[in-house]
Amino acid sequence: MMPDRLKKGEQELSKLDNMQVQRLKDAYSDLSPELVQFTLEYGYADIFSRDNLTPKYRQVATIAALAALGNAQSQLKFHINAGLNIGLTVENIKEIMLLMTIFAGFPAAINGTNILKQVIDER
Amino acid sequence: MMPDRLKKGEQELSKLDNMQVQRLKDAYSDLSPELVQFTLEYGYADIFSRDNLTPKYRQVATIAALAALGNAQSQLKFHINAGLNIGLTVENIKEIMLLMTIFAGFPAAINGTNILKQVIDER
Amino acid sequence: MMPDRLKKGEQELSKLDNMQVQRLKDAYSDLSPELVQFTLEYGYADIFSRDNLTPKYRQVATIAALAALGNAQSQLKFHINAGLNIGLTVENIKEIMLLMTIFAGFPAAINGTNILKQVIDER
Amino acid sequence: MMPDRLKKGEQELSKLDNMQVQRLKDAYSDLSPELVQFTLEYGYADIFSRDNLTPKYRQVATIAALAALGNAQSQLKFHINAGLNIGLTVENIKEIMLLMTIFAGFPAAINGTNILKQVIDER
Amino acid sequence: MMPDRLKKGEQELSKLDNMQVQRLKDAYSDLSPELVQFTLEYGYADIFSRDNLTPKYRQVATIAALAALGNAQSQLKFHINAGLNIGLTVENIKEIMLLMTIFAGFPAAINGTNILKQVIDER
Amino acid sequence: MMPDRLKKGEQELSKLDNMQVQRLKDAYSDLSPELVQFTLEYGYADIFSRDNLTPKYRQVATIAALAALGNAQSQLKFHINAGLNIGLTVENIKEIMLLMTIFAGFPAAINGTNILKQVIDER
Repeated sequence: MMPDRLKKGEQELSKLDNMQVQRLKDAYSDLSPELVQFTLEYGYADIFSRDNLTPKYRQVATIAALAALGNAQSQLKFHINAGLNIGLTVENIKEIMLLMTIFAGFPAAINGTNILKQVIDER
Repeated sequence: MMPDRLKKGEQELSKLDNMQVQRLKDAYSDLSPELVQFTLEYGYADIFSRDNLTPKYRQVATIAALAALGNAQSQLKFHINAGLNIGLTVENIKEIMLLMTIFAGFPAAINGTNILKQVIDER
Repeated sequence: MMPDRLKKGEQELSKLDNMQVQRLKDAYSDLSPELVQFTLEYGYADIFSRDNLTPKYRQVATIAALAALGNAQSQLKFHINAGLNIGLTVENIKEIMLLMTIFAGFPAAINGTNILKQVIDER
Repeated sequence: MMPDRLKKGEQELSKLDNMQVQRLKDAYSDLSPELVQFTLEYGYADIFSRDNLTPKYRQVATIAALAALGNAQSQLKFHINAGLNIGLTVENIKEIMLLMTIFAGFPAAINGTNILKQVIDER
Repeated sequence: MMPDRLKKGEQELSKLDNMQVQRLKDAYSDLSPELVQFTLEYGYADIFSRDNLTPKYRQVATIAALAALGNAQSQLKFHINAGLNIGLTVENIKEIMLLMTIFAGFPAAINGTNILKQVIDER
Repeated sequence: MMPDRLKKGEQELSKLDNMQVQRLKDAYSDLSPELVQFTLEYGYADIFSRDNLTPKYRQVATIAALAALGNAQSQLKFHINAGLNIGLTVENIKEIMLLMTIFAGFPAAINGTNILKQVIDER
């Protein structure tokens, strides 16, 4: 059963970015294979596979939350890129950052826009 | 021109909840009429009126950000209620909170679910 | 298999407070049974059952993190109470709050001490 | 020497609110007398007694920081009241909250304005 | 009318640092000209131009808030530099950081002092 | 008396890392000798020297709080290293990060694990 949740998690994460499962394993399998396991099993198999939010809604919520928190820049970068991969437009994400000026302040919005800019430059 | 931004802001906010302009004025017009003015002009006329996010996307982003921050409970309550008013389902919002277990932790998700529960009880 | 993780989660949570599984179900089973499920399965069966931290270390880490974040007061209250249940002393927890003056500031430490005081008064 | 730091701390805190030393002792002397001691010795004798910021600048900085953090409402209430006691005007503090719309977002600013309103109502 | 708010915003921002309008336009005009527009119109024309706080008080509040939040390092750097430009002393800003040890903890204060050090080194 | 607190603070900090007093003085003695003084006197002489938490409990609490806050990466690095110096194992600290997935979210846990990895690589 456990292998099935892992496999399902890998499939879900690969929908966002088909290189990311490998990157995750390369980065953490030596030190904390459980971090890889729980990210895939809980984060992706249990939560991201669910149906109550479309993939676009889910990325919108994720990008907004990470931009508001402001202390998870590499995760924000990954999820902006993933959002573009699953069909959000640059305009959508730019607008999430403008919305964040209201709820988390201009510095959070500016820093989020900087990450969006990096993602666009690298694609 | 200023009156036009104010009027536009009132119209935008009324789309979320048609009693809120009045509540905002009742609460803050004596002490800080500028807070009312800037909320309406900047928050609603300048930002909420824009087109790059649909109203549903905008509420999804707003609810996710406020749940993640975890220190703006009355604003979260307002925007959950507004989200239901403009067509998000209870299932959508419940799911945003489940998603927040990943990005902001279980306490943020549980506290957000508590607010959703209050909103449902009061509707 | 799923039922086994649920059962294991219930056992782990009951070690902290033997009424909490029931309270959790009473509070959330109608609106978000998944929140109950994931709390038990992921939070308690997957994480709290692990061996790399003793139960006391785990509660020390949990109490410190929640006091530092400062926006999860009901969870802090539960985990202070749970800490006392599994053998931490009032002096230990008082001291975690004094330590938080350094890392999260005096307001976080004072608010954490207020919660400790509530817990002691109610026991 | 220690008694001198304590005494100096009591004098500094009394400049902000002449009832607060007593309130602090009443609230925490049983459970955590060290919290009272360190607040007075470190917070007030070591830091608040210093000269590089005038009392008004110091309260402006304190009110802004607590409003931005958004999770220390009772401390914000105390320091707004203290600010008024040492000569800041309601307009100054209202304006700090408007400024916080930019740096911490509208919810932080609205919640800070709510606290200011409470303080004014109670004076 | 809109051009007047923009112009006023540019004038206000230039009082803090006369190169910053250009830097802002260079950085964001391609991807998000609205972010430039709203920063200037709302942040600087609507808020920074107001009279209830002197420029020094305003920078004290801004520096304190950004140091306390701890996740807006480039904005903190800009506003420390701006504070020095409009007449705050190095001693004032050093002291804001010492004050932040109380309200946001030593790490926030140390990281803020690091930024102050960078600013001094670059001037 | 003051020199005694300073000396005691230096001794306490040296128990965590015997190079850190010197590093602290090198970094801040020119700009803010008071920051060095208060870190040693308050942080280490007054708080870290106390007995209600063992050194291991104290480092567990510190590492958990800093990982949860997520905006004090250099301090987290120092205290992870210090934790290893006073007898925590890599497994203990890895597990604190897994625990943080629950209370502060996966990004905080992943970023904390990254810091742990850096510390191990550099030892």
